[in-house]
Amino acid sequence: MKIITISREFGSGGRELGRRLADELGYDYYDGEIIAAIAKNSGLDPNYVENALEDHGWQAIPMTVHRTFASPMVLQTPQVGLLLEQKRVIEGIGKKGKNCIVVGRNADLLLQEYEPFNLFVCADMEAKIDRCIERAKEGENLSRKELEKKIRRVDKNRANTREILSSSGWGQRDAYHLIVNTTGWDIKELTPAVATFAERWFNRK
Amino acid sequence: MKIITISREFGSGGRELGRRLADELGYDYYDGEIIAAIAKNSGLDPNYVENALEDHGWQAIPMTVHRTFASPMVLQTPQVGLLLEQKRVIEGIGKKGKNCIVVGRNADLLLQEYEPFNLFVCADMEAKIDRCIERAKEGENLSRKELEKKIRRVDKNRANTREILSSSGWGQRDAYHLIVNTTGWDIKELTPAVATFAERWFNRK
Repeated sequence: MKIITISREFGSGGRELGRRLADELGYDYYDGEIIAAIAKNSGLDPNYVENALEDHGWQAIPMTVHRTFASPMVLQTPQVGLLLEQKRVIEGIGKKGKNCIVVGRNADLLLQEYEPFNLFVCADMEAKIDRCIERAKEGENLSRKELEKKIRRVDKNRANTREILSSSGWGQRDAYHLIVNTTGWDIKELTPAVATFAERWFNRK
Repeated sequence: MKIITISREFGSGGRELGRRLADELGYDYYDGEIIAAIAKNSGLDPNYVENALEDHGWQAIPMTVHRTFASPMVLQTPQVGLLLEQKRVIEGIGKKGKNCIVVGRNADLLLQEYEPFNLFVCADMEAKIDRCIERAKEGENLSRKELEKKIRRVDKNRANTREILSSSGWGQRDAYHLIVNTTGWDIKELTPAVATFAERWFNRK
């Protein structure tokens, strides 16, 4: 089984790259599917689940609580409950035994027993802001400055969430096989370069 | 003209990757050649030049001096003189106008007007120590602990030297196009994956 995990800075195009890689390689693809499964299992609204896991909240849990995960007191915190459910869902993806790409959610750590190829996707701040503006949903009208703030906040949360699971830092070079800066790339053109790289990794002697 | 610059952690195999990339792509290759040219231009011993630039010394120059490069007082410091000579040699490589690979020496910054493809090569500490032991010259008998110390010292010096030239951090993901972790790779097998990546970058629309 070949698993590629993609961690990424908000707005870097990591999600698009993941989708395109899955198409190129014929792998299963997991991203929003994970949220849907957590929502179903926990009986919560998918939007609530996504917000709680992505854009809010872990800072609110004191670090000592992060570290003592299994205590019954902690399990009452809704975010920790969601994180545990997310862990179960991602471990379930591993158990399926099929080649797949998993975007975000610390899959590189949660699936490490399967020796995934771990990719981190980043981009320059200006490129990320441009990308966010291009992809803004109707009615979203954040200024460049507000978008920069949002990007920093989401990434901070991703880094903090990773800290619950690992001592290796989010986005630190030693924690990944490959770190790609998408600035200046059309993701469509970048995809085969990354696919070749990952295939060589899986097929190496 | 296509230029690939390679920055690397000591012991990560960045130099071997550079040499193999040059073979694979048919590019000129610059590494020890730079030291030889500096030694020739300055009338100094190549070993002295290499040591002064790589493994010693920049910490000895106070940061205020780093930042005021051009003052006549500073030019009297031998290391700054060497750094300026190195700068001239690397800029000379750019002026030749030929496809090339330049290993180390902040070429990514010094050649940025030519829009090089900037690669950073890293590896896990254990893998770097293994590599240093494999490649040790006769008579070198450092323990794993001593090698780890040496690796950290050399990399610290590289980071400090970069600080003289740029506010972007050495080994920080936003400063490079691609960061490759060589742990688990045979560099021979890794080379074509990186070559394909760089070629796609140069040929992108």
